[in-house]
Amino acid sequence: MASAQGCTITDTSGIDFLDAYNNVPVLGHSHPAIADAVHAQLLRANTHTRYLDDVVDAYSRDLLALLPQHIESVVYTCSGSEANDLALQVAAYSSMSEGVIVARRAYHGTTSATAAISPSLSPAPRDHVVTVDIPDADDPDFGRLLAGRVRRAAAELERRGHGTSAFVLDSTMTSEGIIAGEHVRLALAVDAVHDAGGFYIADEVQAGFFRTGTWWGYESLGVAPDLVTFGKPMGGGMPVAAVAGPRVVFSDFGGQQRYFNTFAGTPAPIAAAHTVLNALRDGGFGERVPEAGQRLGDGLSDALAEAGVDGRVRRAGLMVGVDLQPAAGDAARAGAWAGELVEAMYARRVLVSRTGPGDAVVKIRPPLVITDEEIDRLIEAFRGALEDVGSAYA
Amino acid sequence: MASAQGCTITDTSGIDFLDAYNNVPVLGHSHPAIADAVHAQLLRANTHTRYLDDVVDAYSRDLLALLPQHIESVVYTCSGSEANDLALQVAAYSSMSEGVIVARRAYHGTTSATAAISPSLSPAPRDHVVTVDIPDADDPDFGRLLAGRVRRAAAELERRGHGTSAFVLDSTMTSEGIIAGEHVRLALAVDAVHDAGGFYIADEVQAGFFRTGTWWGYESLGVAPDLVTFGKPMGGGMPVAAVAGPRVVFSDFGGQQRYFNTFAGTPAPIAAAHTVLNALRDGGFGERVPEAGQRLGDGLSDALAEAGVDGRVRRAGLMVGVDLQPAAGDAARAGAWAGELVEAMYARRVLVSRTGPGDAVVKIRPPLVITDEEIDRLIEAFRGALEDVGSAYA
Repeated sequence: MASAQGCTITDTSGIDFLDAYNNVPVLGHSHPAIADAVHAQLLRANTHTRYLDDVVDAYSRDLLALLPQHIESVVYTCSGSEANDLALQVAAYSSMSEGVIVARRAYHGTTSATAAISPSLSPAPRDHVVTVDIPDADDPDFGRLLAGRVRRAAAELERRGHGTSAFVLDSTMTSEGIIAGEHVRLALAVDAVHDAGGFYIADEVQAGFFRTGTWWGYESLGVAPDLVTFGKPMGGGMPVAAVAGPRVVFSDFGGQQRYFNTFAGTPAPIAAAHTVLNALRDGGFGERVPEAGQRLGDGLSDALAEAGVDGRVRRAGLMVGVDLQPAAGDAARAGAWAGELVEAMYARRVLVSRTGPGDAVVKIRPPLVITDEEIDRLIEAFRGALEDVGSAYA
Repeated sequence: MASAQGCTITDTSGIDFLDAYNNVPVLGHSHPAIADAVHAQLLRANTHTRYLDDVVDAYSRDLLALLPQHIESVVYTCSGSEANDLALQVAAYSSMSEGVIVARRAYHGTTSATAAISPSLSPAPRDHVVTVDIPDADDPDFGRLLAGRVRRAAAELERRGHGTSAFVLDSTMTSEGIIAGEHVRLALAVDAVHDAGGFYIADEVQAGFFRTGTWWGYESLGVAPDLVTFGKPMGGGMPVAAVAGPRVVFSDFGGQQRYFNTFAGTPAPIAAAHTVLNALRDGGFGERVPEAGQRLGDGLSDALAEAGVDGRVRRAGLMVGVDLQPAAGDAARAGAWAGELVEAMYARRVLVSRTGPGDAVVKIRPPLVITDEEIDRLIEAFRGALEDVGSAYA
């Protein structure tokens, strides 16, 4: 890679790619306002949070103002992994339990504790982790089905002697193949977690900061979280992440175990995060992301229909999945097909990826500043890729 | 805090403090070359390591050139905690064991797994962790004593069914009260770990990058590590850390469990890290740090002698501890004394802190660019603080 600007990544031979894969540079790559904010802060001061800095207080206030009233405190970390790891520690301490319920193919991080609750990394199964299958997004009974599975998982954790500490869910269920839609509601599942004495931790590392068309992905799920974690887009590329929740939960935990993180919430990454937050708040993203997502989703659906491919476009804002399994029959065939499509789009200089069961879902999540012209180029590349790969898998 | 430049931190009322506490801004606070390198990189590109960037390769080569030949690979993380967490995962996978040996008051991070091996955070004792007391730095038998304790710890881990995965040690043993000196050697202890099938993980998060007068703290301990972790000073304040080790150890682990870390080793923090590395390599720190440390250590010893206080100055380069326990008799009295001294130095506008058993050791670790004039000011403040606090504790 030689450089990256806006939605364009340029490789070392000078070829431009439309980046429809990266959810970190939410305002586009190499955003000058972020670079300048970091530069100014690095020239002024960038020590750790034992030295109080107004920059950090000001951001914390602005961030908390965007969250439900019971989310009163924020603790910074360097990465989404660290945020989820800390959320697990806090939940375990408050619930006096260790059991965790996650989705079948969940990914929540790479620390020991978050890797243990990330079946998608294929670590050894752990006794304190029980997975639930996420129901079909089209099933009108989604909420009731999921709640039943969560209740059974909690009962299993009880039986194993762990109890239920937390139900952790990526709000767009990305690794499950991007699960979104009118039936995808969590209220009953969250009731089940609460009945078992556990916390609902909304993992907004991928879904947060307007990816879904609203500030937080859980808003579309009809629930409010007990703890919420942030990451990837938060600093527009600078390493900053956080966990937020009720004040009492953190003070209880802090009373038992000291938490201090040298780089976390230092002024330079926070300056980047504040630039991102201000731009998202004042940039009309609440209108633009749903509109852009609609244009992209419709275009992809049309391309599938024109090619006679029975795929499904699932979408929350600009988090878009194209599921090829209905057309391919089984997940392995669909996965191979999706793999060829991703390569064909790369040949057409558009970057996307895959996710979900068998990696059969084409994953599309461009920077939120993607223009209509870029969306149309993306759709054209998808249309062309469908032709390139042909009907071998259909 | 209003700003920080060089070794000076200025508070919001305009008062300047000499910073002799922070080991992150190794080249001084707000170093313009670091700020400019980060700025330039943020304007060019700063995506994650799935997009290869020469900036990262170039740094990796330069870093590995400073390490023993068997340390062939480096994996980046965002924080020292993540680096130690990953080192534990890698060691556990390769050793097929989970038991960890650490020092009595060790601190290795705040993730679930690193907090579990950090007795100084006072988490609940864990079955897979056995601690060893670090012998007296003045004991000529230090190496043999420590090795015996490590062997007994390994036997205990074996008895508990965990086996020995790793012996993790901060190379300056900061939380133990800063343990350094001619007798402080590790070779026999490392033999004991190897005999038990475990890895010696050198935690260089605090000790690395010339803090001790050489590139790595373990050099003074007469050993070479199996795995080594880096953090704090690595990026001069930008969030970047790493674990390095033999290639085969990482490839074995990677074959079983995917490791990817969004912010880790991204070009902007790496640009900062490369600026730090170049400045340390070309800036004569191999001569300056021992010389500055000697001046500081001698001055502190003289101040103690003049005040008639039977304290001990232990030192590795510019990592300096003043242990008041010999003078105070017991750790609690010494801790209270050290606390008053730290406050008295703060009143004299010099920032230091405490560590060790009972927090009875004054911890001094200024930026490595501290000048002779600043060192003399620090010594004067210490002399004055000894007078301010008086002989109540002696």
